[in-house]
Amino acid sequence: MAEAPFRRLALVGLGLIGSSIARGARAAGLADAIVAVDRDPGVIARVAALGLADEATTDLAGGVAGADLVILCVPVGAIGAVAAEMAHGLAPGAILSDVGSVKAAVVAAAAPHLPEGVSFVPAHPVAGTEHSGPDAGFASLFHGRWCILTPPEGTDPAAVARVRAFWEGLGSVVETMTPAHHDLVLAITSHVPHLIAYNIVGTAADLETVTQSEVIKFSAGGFRDFTRIAASDPTMWRDIFLTNKEAVLEMLGRFNEDLAALARAIRWDDGEALHALFTRTRAIRRGIVAMGQETAEPDFGRRSGGPKTTG
Amino acid sequence: MAEAPFRRLALVGLGLIGSSIARGARAAGLADAIVAVDRDPGVIARVAALGLADEATTDLAGGVAGADLVILCVPVGAIGAVAAEMAHGLAPGAILSDVGSVKAAVVAAAAPHLPEGVSFVPAHPVAGTEHSGPDAGFASLFHGRWCILTPPEGTDPAAVARVRAFWEGLGSVVETMTPAHHDLVLAITSHVPHLIAYNIVGTAADLETVTQSEVIKFSAGGFRDFTRIAASDPTMWRDIFLTNKEAVLEMLGRFNEDLAALARAIRWDDGEALHALFTRTRAIRRGIVAMGQETAEPDFGRRSGGPKTTG
Repeated sequence: MAEAPFRRLALVGLGLIGSSIARGARAAGLADAIVAVDRDPGVIARVAALGLADEATTDLAGGVAGADLVILCVPVGAIGAVAAEMAHGLAPGAILSDVGSVKAAVVAAAAPHLPEGVSFVPAHPVAGTEHSGPDAGFASLFHGRWCILTPPEGTDPAAVARVRAFWEGLGSVVETMTPAHHDLVLAITSHVPHLIAYNIVGTAADLETVTQSEVIKFSAGGFRDFTRIAASDPTMWRDIFLTNKEAVLEMLGRFNEDLAALARAIRWDDGEALHALFTRTRAIRRGIVAMGQETAEPDFGRRSGGPKTTG
Repeated sequence: MAEAPFRRLALVGLGLIGSSIARGARAAGLADAIVAVDRDPGVIARVAALGLADEATTDLAGGVAGADLVILCVPVGAIGAVAAEMAHGLAPGAILSDVGSVKAAVVAAAAPHLPEGVSFVPAHPVAGTEHSGPDAGFASLFHGRWCILTPPEGTDPAAVARVRAFWEGLGSVVETMTPAHHDLVLAITSHVPHLIAYNIVGTAADLETVTQSEVIKFSAGGFRDFTRIAASDPTMWRDIFLTNKEAVLEMLGRFNEDLAALARAIRWDDGEALHALFTRTRAIRRGIVAMGQETAEPDFGRRSGGPKTTG
């Protein structure tokens, strides 16, 4: 990368994202030393066992002391408390960043706790899997994925440039936008999709006319796709919906309007309207595949368990 | 398989499912001869080029003549017309089946056209991909997947047994239920999931505050999963919604009630309700993976396009 590596990278929160950054940063030589900080001794023990960092500690302020890049990889609802607790440990000139899926609320929560001389460059790598914890991470998670930076007005451009270079070093494509626009974009590309996936899985589980065993057996008809997203971390997602409330409810309102129109088309046998929509939606996927954001293999290239794998 | 192979298998409609049956039946020796019937000369040409059948014709009644098993693999909306057109070609003692995703409407549409001495054993293999056409099929599509039979009351048990053996020969697990119950089960495990996937992709495409390019770039946040289902065959799905209207609208009503409650929990900061649902939904996916209906690999074992494949 264009910029020199960071001397000391402190990662706060070693879940899927934090542990993937640790693996990727080491693989790409983006930091001379990596410090893993997590309040959970069990996580710190796994980090040590997996050899993900040079140092691992449950001491927040002590762990970030002397780091020139600190990345908060905790649920967005915890950002404020974590920032307050470690603020006095931050070194002058340090760059603080995060990986939160919501940005306006994160900026508002962290800003009041920033010491003089510390630059805050919020980031959101749009990547992940439905698995959680330090064992779930992998170095290539960010390869070819977008990472969105939302620096508040007046942020030191040099700090923004270093964070950009860091994410490019992890294999990401970096884009910058305002926190408010980020929250609107992610509401439709990530938050509402998760909400409706969680919702339909809940609906299916609560039916009395269809057994849960039937739902599971016949899930290959489409339902199973939604269960992957609905298996994502509950705490992380609770926080996302509570901190991006306005954008999520706005986008959900649009979704509901369109769904009502679709239901009406079904009720009134408007086959033309259905066919027109179903044809239009095919083009969007082609665009996603063309952009390298999705595999072109049928069924995600999925190899299901059971006999199908023999075929 | 327990039963002797069929002498002459006629497949009407050589799309993803029909061509997969042709490949699987030949691989497993389930029929002495396979006849491919499709009204589209282009499809017949591909079938010949791919060598999927012993005979290929656009002549419906002529193609099914003398077949002891005829399987209709056409959109459910076309079942009635196709049955009427070929009825006089059906041999006495022949078994007629289909692969439609809706069963009550299919039975109602086909029944009036059945000649004396022909048994009708409706079937629905719960398997598929988002791709269409004779080139998209593969022999292992049905391996480890459920196939649901919905024989009307009074159907010859021997005919049901032979169709069951045929699908077991293709690698499926066979279950029998009434057409009405099938339509209710599939409404929640397949039809409503497709409906909301088509809907959110349409909603995202129509936003004026978020560009289509942004939707595509940041789709890895969850949205892209929905685009796979929303890329399914438009005609097939239009017909499904129009022929399973009552069950789809009933299940959609349940989905909407639950979604309204979820939106309310977000608006009123009920984090406990959100966390409780998000925790509950994880268990369903574990059940699907345990049943061999889904891969346990993170992210469907997906290898996305672009640099990620190098990781």
